Order: sequence, then structure tokens, then C-alpha cells
Amino acid sequence: MRKLIYAVTASLDGYIARLDGSLDFLHLRPSNYSMGAFFQTIDVGLMGRKTYEAGVRMSGGKFESHGLPCYIFSGTLPEGERNGAVFVREEPKRFVEELRKKKGKDIWLAGGGELAREFLKEDLVDQLHLGIVPVLVGEGIPLFTAGFPQREFTLTENKTYSGGVIALKYERVRGTPAVEAKSTTKSKRKR
Amino acid sequence: MRKLIYAVTASLDGYIARLDGSLDFLHLRPSNYSMGAFFQTIDVGLMGRKTYEAGVRMSGGKFESHGLPCYIFSGTLPEGERNGAVFVREEPKRFVEELRKKKGKDIWLAGGGELAREFLKEDLVDQLHLGIVPVLVGEGIPLFTAGFPQREFTLTENKTYSGGVIALKYERVRGTPAVEAKSTTKSKRKR
Repeated sequence: MRKLIYAVTASLDGYIARLDGSLDFLHLRPSNYSMGAFFQTIDVGLMGRKTYEAGVRMSGGKFESHGLPCYIFSGTLPEGERNGAVFVREEPKRFVEELRKKKGKDIWLAGGGELAREFLKEDLVDQLHLGIVPVLVGEGIPLFTAGFPQREFTLTENKTYSGGVIALKYERVRGTPAVEAKSTTKSKRKR
Repeated sequence: MRKLIYAVTASLDGYIARLDGSLDFLHLRPSNYSMGAFFQTIDVGLMGRKTYEAGVRMSGGKFESHGLPCYIFSGTLPEGERNGAVFVREEPKRFVEELRKKKGKDIWLAGGGELAREFLKEDLVDQLHLGIVPVLVGEGIPLFTAGFPQREFTLTENKTYSGGVIALKYERVRGTPAVEAKSTTKSKRKR
């Protein structure tokens, strides 16, 4: 099944962009970290209206999707295709269910925190791929916005890149954790 | 000089406790991660009123400092020593300056995000030691609260422990990063 992956690069204090959409803090120091390989594994992007608008603002009014079909979730903007994106008002759950029925690569949830919250509420997020840069920016568009039920994950990768960037991959644990089968008994008791 | 270290264990979505002070989510799965070694390096703890009250609530009305002298920053509670802690209303900057003048081990900033924000505003934080557990709890007492200027760090350690806990250490970069001297020119240009 096509997995839904929330994949973003964020500051250490959990922001994916400044309030004006600027991403400059992600590149304060040179790093060999890149999301390039990830983009080979997905063929559709989903994002919230604020993240879309921040991106447009930073590109001088144009939406740069580099050929990737992108759906923008918005309760206020009119539905339909324009400016290189498709605007939708659907429920995330129904939308993702329909998307999973179609053949394709994995599905990229690009942010921000408010849309991620809606997806996490419905337990639609299968994996997290997080790049964390070593800076506290102090304010911005959040990676996670409060207000969804607890969701447990298993760490599947933790790599350190130059410039102090770390790349973390997590897989959603629904039911008994598969990776840590050895400690299942103890783990169950604690819950 | 005595370093001031913000050291806490947090959820992946950046909470150091639930709203009621509960820390159960830090131990959902067994892990060999521990802050034990860290506690050998410090001899004083600083925390905000809300974090103190959450701790007291979880310990049935008693404050458990395990013999560590602890200062509680509060703008509302009366100053002075009681219930195993010392309540202060001082400016963090002046307070830390006085503490650094005295001989001793490093200084532990125990949280939460609101006090950390005040300390980060004054650029008093020298290191971050963060344990991150693989769970999104959805809401709680934040690790970082928005509203301080950008602060850059260098990653000095990234370790993976069992149960999917990662332990990150960062050192505050004031001026040119020492660790990445090779890329100084490029780095400067980007700033």
C-alpha cells in the first residue's frame, strides 16, 4: 500500500519555516544532508494552505512544485486547479483513502503542523522523515501543532550529516511494535 | 566556567510532560537511555513554576529533588525556601551571573519551555542535552516556547538507544563555529 510520509526539514525547536515562509535557517551551514533521495520515492504532495502561501511568497508569487502534482488543503480558498496546484476541501481521511486506491509511489505530506494535526487525528501518517538542523529559530510555522491523540512510532533510522544536521526516520506503530519483539511482554505491561 | 545546560527528555513533538505533569510517555518502551550520568556533572537545578507544580502534582504534593538544590523561578509565588526548593523572582541573567561566580559543577536548566525562552532571550544556554522518545503525545508542557531570538548550535553528539530513544548534545555557537572551521568561508557568505 502507498505509505503516507510526513517528511520535512525543521529547526531544533520544531519549525519548518519562518512566519514569512523563509527557509534560510535550514542552510546556515553547508551540509551533505538532502531530501533528494526521498523525492524519488513519492509522486504526490499534500500541504496546508499556510504552507502553500508561504512557499508562494518565497518564490515571488509562483508555486514551485517542480512537476510534482500537489494538493493544497484549504477551508477558505475555492476548490480546483490553478497556479500549478489543486485546491481541495475534502476530509483528509477520505482523500487519502481515495489516493491509496490508485497505484503509485508513496504520498508526501509536506506540512505544516496544522494539516499534520488533522492527518494525525485520523491516524493517516505511516512514517516520519525528519531532518533537524542545529538552530533554534524562536518562532515560525510549526512542525507539529498541538491537538491530536497520542501516536507511537518506532525509530528506523538516525543518521548524522555534516553541518550538524540529523536525519530521523520513524514508522508508525499500530498495535504491538514489530521491531522490538523481544521486549513485547514488558512493553505491554507498561501500557 | 560553569556551563548552563538545558537537559530534558521530550516527546518527538516537543513536550517534556503532559499538561498534568505526567511523564508516563517517556517510558512506553524499555530503553537503556538514562540521564544518570548527566546528574553527576551538575550540582544545581533551575526550573519554572509550572514545571515545579507539575512535578509536585505527580509526587503527591511533595517536591522530589533527591538532594539537589533547586531554584524555582516564579513571578507569582512568594520568594524563599520551602518544600525542599528555593523560590526566586530574580532576572535569569543576574541570577545565572551570580551562580557562575561561585565554584561548582555545571548548572541544570530543567525546564519548561517558558523559562527556557527567558534564558534563551538572554543567551544564557550553553548546551542542550535532549533525549527524544519516539512518540507524538499531541499536547503538553513544551520543550521550547516561541518568542526568543535565533540561537545557533553545533551538534556534538547523536546516539541511538534501545526503545528508539535518541540522545542529542548541542553546544551554543557564539561567533564563528569552532567545530566546522573548514567551512567557515562558505558559511560566512551564507549569513
